[in-house]
Amino acid sequence: MESVFISGLGMIGSSLARSIRQGDDEVKITGSDPDDANGQFMIQSGLIDQVVSFEQGAQQADVIFLCGPVDVIIDQIKELPTLNLKPGVVVTDVGSTKAKIMTAAKVLSDHNITFVGGHPMAGSHLTGAKSGRTDLFSQATYFLIPNNGMAGVEQIKRLLKTSTSKWRVVSIENHEQFVGAASHLPHVIASSLVQATNSSLKNTEVGLESAAGGFRDTTRIAAADPDMWTAIMLSNQEVILDQIDEFSKALATIKQDIQAGNQTAIHNFFSKSQEIRQLIDQG
Amino acid sequence: MESVFISGLGMIGSSLARSIRQGDDEVKITGSDPDDANGQFMIQSGLIDQVVSFEQGAQQADVIFLCGPVDVIIDQIKELPTLNLKPGVVVTDVGSTKAKIMTAAKVLSDHNITFVGGHPMAGSHLTGAKSGRTDLFSQATYFLIPNNGMAGVEQIKRLLKTSTSKWRVVSIENHEQFVGAASHLPHVIASSLVQATNSSLKNTEVGLESAAGGFRDTTRIAAADPDMWTAIMLSNQEVILDQIDEFSKALATIKQDIQAGNQTAIHNFFSKSQEIRQLIDQG
Repeated sequence: MESVFISGLGMIGSSLARSIRQGDDEVKITGSDPDDANGQFMIQSGLIDQVVSFEQGAQQADVIFLCGPVDVIIDQIKELPTLNLKPGVVVTDVGSTKAKIMTAAKVLSDHNITFVGGHPMAGSHLTGAKSGRTDLFSQATYFLIPNNGMAGVEQIKRLLKTSTSKWRVVSIENHEQFVGAASHLPHVIASSLVQATNSSLKNTEVGLESAAGGFRDTTRIAAADPDMWTAIMLSNQEVILDQIDEFSKALATIKQDIQAGNQTAIHNFFSKSQEIRQLIDQG
Repeated sequence: MESVFISGLGMIGSSLARSIRQGDDEVKITGSDPDDANGQFMIQSGLIDQVVSFEQGAQQADVIFLCGPVDVIIDQIKELPTLNLKPGVVVTDVGSTKAKIMTAAKVLSDHNITFVGGHPMAGSHLTGAKSGRTDLFSQATYFLIPNNGMAGVEQIKRLLKTSTSKWRVVSIENHEQFVGAASHLPHVIASSLVQATNSSLKNTEVGLESAAGGFRDTTRIAAADPDMWTAIMLSNQEVILDQIDEFSKALATIKQDIQAGNQTAIHNFFSKSQEIRQLIDQG
């Protein structure tokens, strides 16, 4: 019988358990969490079979999912080679700052332990086992970054076959480039936009609370947790700086067109953006 | 009996009729529209009392709502002083490029005709009388820009009392500053972001179709009609250019902080943006 151990039974970890159980109820699932309530909820809901210690869970497992905060994941990666793991065990995680984790995971490669960095692009502001959902990963991109050829990749996909994730096996460089462009840069831009508009309206009669849906959409992500985003900026510094420059080039182009009152050029710029943006929604 | 004439029975004009009727069914509402289907729908639904010509409608009305496209509004503003209007008539409109309309409306001031520029921050991609809604303006900011003290303002608010709009009586300068910051600048930024991220990912394995909800929210408005947005850029050029500079200053600050790896400064920047953005949703 295949055995899976999930360390961290919060929203992501508990959703993985739900998906694995739905896909094959013969898989044995054990779990651990510093918060007893999460483990108890999972047992009572029949979503895991046993609450175990990290050491016990890791040593019994064929596949280990590390689903805690990034610093906990890194500590656990360091601990794994000291344990008596099953031969052929596959270790994966769900941390979003992947560069740091992949660097830490070199210790696993050194011990011939297969590690597949994982990054499901799903989540919400909710936390805890109760807020997990079977369909949390549905249609979401789920990055896999293997350290050992394709070892472990099919096993993870098979366990999560009912998740309907969009699997993307990528290099760490391409992962960082992608999250830089699609997530980190937009956060920098939305945060800058909020401050610029707030300054612009400081001395007028109307404040940003009058803004319509378009502004709210464009700046929504600026309300996210500053702790998390500060850590992300420092983890992907170079890529983000390059992309800020790429953005500034585009902004300089449209600024020049507006300055020149060049109707055709402005129209071309907006048409190009419209086309790209519409393709994304069809993608 | 108070008489209202609505020129243009599309989504906005027909929604105004719905709201006026709901507020006071004794008000006589006449309407005109180049598309006969809109007029017929409004009559059959009991939302207006009579389909009339522009001239006839304008001459019988106590309050005139101009709800056509901006160029039609401007032509109609020029025509109004040549008609035999009721003394004390109040003229208002719903065009979004207000500077052009307020400039055109000087001809009304010259003829002692009260004009209150109007800009309800509501709408959607839908068109036509059938797509109008009684609650279209609910909780939306509705700008009023009077040319003659407060004349006409209370009359418009009273007619639309059930709309639950958030009325803001402002100067044209403040209006342009506000829409520049809350609508025009975000459009420039979202369009630039789409192009920058697209360039950044051109040579990687993963395209923007893998982007998650945050990116989609931040760039949603970039999919809007380039014709309309080109016209808007040219109508509010100076304000937009100033605000691009304001934005670039904010971006330069966070770029420098990331470059320096200054954790405290990055955190302060994101915390400030978070605070402002959260206040908007509470406003």
